[in-house]
Amino acid sequence: MAINIPRGTQDILPGDVEKWQFIEEKARDICKRFNYKEIRTPIFEHTDLFLRGVGETTDIVQKEMYTFQDRGERSLTLRPEGTAAVVRSYVENKMFGNPNQPTKLYYCGPMFRYERPQAGRFRQFVQFGVEALGSNDPAIDAEVISLAMEIYQSLGLKKLKLVVNSLGDIDSRVAHREALISHFSPRIEEFCSDCKSRLEKNPMRILDCKKDKDHDFMQTAPSIIEYLNDESREYFEKVQMYLRDLHIDFEVDSGLVRGLDYYNHTAFEIMSNAEGFGAITTLCGGGRYNGLVEEFDGPETPGIGFALSIERLLAALHAEGIELQTETKLDCYVATIGENAAEKSVVLVHELRKAGLTAEKDYQKRKMKAQFKAADRLQARYVAVLGDEELERNVINVKNMETGEQEEVMIDQFIAYIAGVK
Amino acid sequence: MAINIPRGTQDILPGDVEKWQFIEEKARDICKRFNYKEIRTPIFEHTDLFLRGVGETTDIVQKEMYTFQDRGERSLTLRPEGTAAVVRSYVENKMFGNPNQPTKLYYCGPMFRYERPQAGRFRQFVQFGVEALGSNDPAIDAEVISLAMEIYQSLGLKKLKLVVNSLGDIDSRVAHREALISHFSPRIEEFCSDCKSRLEKNPMRILDCKKDKDHDFMQTAPSIIEYLNDESREYFEKVQMYLRDLHIDFEVDSGLVRGLDYYNHTAFEIMSNAEGFGAITTLCGGGRYNGLVEEFDGPETPGIGFALSIERLLAALHAEGIELQTETKLDCYVATIGENAAEKSVVLVHELRKAGLTAEKDYQKRKMKAQFKAADRLQARYVAVLGDEELERNVINVKNMETGEQEEVMIDQFIAYIAGVK
Repeated sequence: MAINIPRGTQDILPGDVEKWQFIEEKARDICKRFNYKEIRTPIFEHTDLFLRGVGETTDIVQKEMYTFQDRGERSLTLRPEGTAAVVRSYVENKMFGNPNQPTKLYYCGPMFRYERPQAGRFRQFVQFGVEALGSNDPAIDAEVISLAMEIYQSLGLKKLKLVVNSLGDIDSRVAHREALISHFSPRIEEFCSDCKSRLEKNPMRILDCKKDKDHDFMQTAPSIIEYLNDESREYFEKVQMYLRDLHIDFEVDSGLVRGLDYYNHTAFEIMSNAEGFGAITTLCGGGRYNGLVEEFDGPETPGIGFALSIERLLAALHAEGIELQTETKLDCYVATIGENAAEKSVVLVHELRKAGLTAEKDYQKRKMKAQFKAADRLQARYVAVLGDEELERNVINVKNMETGEQEEVMIDQFIAYIAGVK
Repeated sequence: MAINIPRGTQDILPGDVEKWQFIEEKARDICKRFNYKEIRTPIFEHTDLFLRGVGETTDIVQKEMYTFQDRGERSLTLRPEGTAAVVRSYVENKMFGNPNQPTKLYYCGPMFRYERPQAGRFRQFVQFGVEALGSNDPAIDAEVISLAMEIYQSLGLKKLKLVVNSLGDIDSRVAHREALISHFSPRIEEFCSDCKSRLEKNPMRILDCKKDKDHDFMQTAPSIIEYLNDESREYFEKVQMYLRDLHIDFEVDSGLVRGLDYYNHTAFEIMSNAEGFGAITTLCGGGRYNGLVEEFDGPETPGIGFALSIERLLAALHAEGIELQTETKLDCYVATIGENAAEKSVVLVHELRKAGLTAEKDYQKRKMKAQFKAADRLQARYVAVLGDEELERNVINVKNMETGEQEEVMIDQFIAYIAGVK
């Protein structure tokens, strides 16, 4: 019996993988310009990291983690998101001691959540994210948001909606929490069992519930914006001022909560409003998480970041009909007739490659006509033809596939010739 | 209590990560020139895949796999190597039906083996590998080997040793197997328990035993080379001919077996013989695996590939004292005095970045002197100084950090100025 790929995962194959490479290269280049450096953390972490860092009341921790014991009886979990591990690494490697602050990091790699697979949702998916640790300047919030927007816009996306909110500082959140409990308590029996347990543990999470989202008490729930204290309000206003300075359009949505426990102050999402994009429109989410570093026994450190899904980004490109310009042409295909010529072509192709050119030959004992077809499929710019007769005369026949022109070239000048006309 | 990184894994941090990026980019570029395309398979696969594809008698399967059940009670395993999944994908996606043959693929990503951590050996490590499926031409064996060598040599490594062997076809292996059983049977009681069970299951694996490697029967064991039939011998000779054609030095070592069950015909390893490199000298291993595709219910398809560890490659670079030339300079740092200038600098830095330049500013409310120090640490080529007084006059002061020259530039020409002098 054939063995299949695990449910909810995908192979990324040639023909598609070039889009991934293009997007990741673009994102890396933008991070470089914004002075964010890459960090790579392990695929799995101690399970405790996510219990503490993501939050025990979240869907991720309660329902979606890939948790297992290793042969040393450690409880490990495949990372469901990137921030907790980056913060763990920041503390463990004492990056707060580096004179370059804030610590500006990015990551790109697979994440894992055991969800019901559906269109655009995978159990293994790729997140690209950034974290800026160590600054409380509203300008860094605007920088992080602008970096995310720059990734999308540089790929040609136009139908984007940026939504921002403030979840305030701890004082504001405590006041809001009280108001939410007062609001929902009288009719909590009408809500789902998850929401009932959220009421005491983390009532703000009720606003994020997918089951109860149409309950009329949702619309009238007290908004965090009304409970922001002066400091939180001023912070939020400065973030908005910088976004306007940078000509980045946004809307304030006081209902924006985000699915993770650790956010405070700035929260944001970028959505696609392209037609036919589907029900899940969020491309990217992020926010500020002052306090998370202390949670992992680091010094008091503010932080902000975002994560975006490459799968959703690809879906948004598709919805807007954008084709990425990925380069697939081959510089030269060497076609041969006869055994000696075939042997010689191994060397010639190798030399072309060493000279920085993309080159290919036949490994299937194909006839000349089939070799030309293969060169066509590979979009070869030049096809070089070598027979035993040419080999004896130390020449090779080079055909320009665009113009149809042919030229006989000395074999010892062949590499320089192709490199020159490329 | 702080939560630490799982044992046997590592964070790759800024300062080191640039080396990884450099190596991976180089390897990707070489693959492009050799016309190998990337494939990305999931981090985990059904456990059966590795039982069948790696071999039940191997150390990997018996002792080292990270195997767990998901919430749907599937037995999954974090991939311990790359070939089995590539072959699974090749069959599942019917790549054999593509007219471009052989199917030439590369991959790069984390692999997982539960081994005792030691210098240069991690439980999560990164493999870069290629697979060429669908050709039985000895030239493709030479191409695969030359690609691996090109990766090492292009990074500047010189102290390399390439070792090749042939494990022959099935007939040759059956003959050799009989000879090994006859050889070891009389004194098998002196060998370790693993070797005892290998005697019947896979006696060739005894030659690879780390415990019994000094037993005097090892030296006198019959060599596979003596048991190659004519076809296998001729194939091996052609591979060697092509390597000589490509000026690639190699040694034939009839003791080279490789740790995986599925190899036949060509097997090879590339080792570092740099002084002080340490006991584990193998950088890269590979070989031919005709038959593996059928094992996964695909059509009869020859295949060959290799995998190399990036961690070991870095160790080899270190042993040879090679520093990779990674670019870390910043184009421009914008330093400010005063609140209005600080606000304006957010916009200027953003515009520099949008123009393709690397740019940074202060987010820590540092004084001017500290901002200059920060610019120095980031190796800024230019520092632009903006005070509220300059802002009123619409100018900015630009200092070339190499020459010390300063120039006052109109703010609306600032971006073009930096782009121009870069």
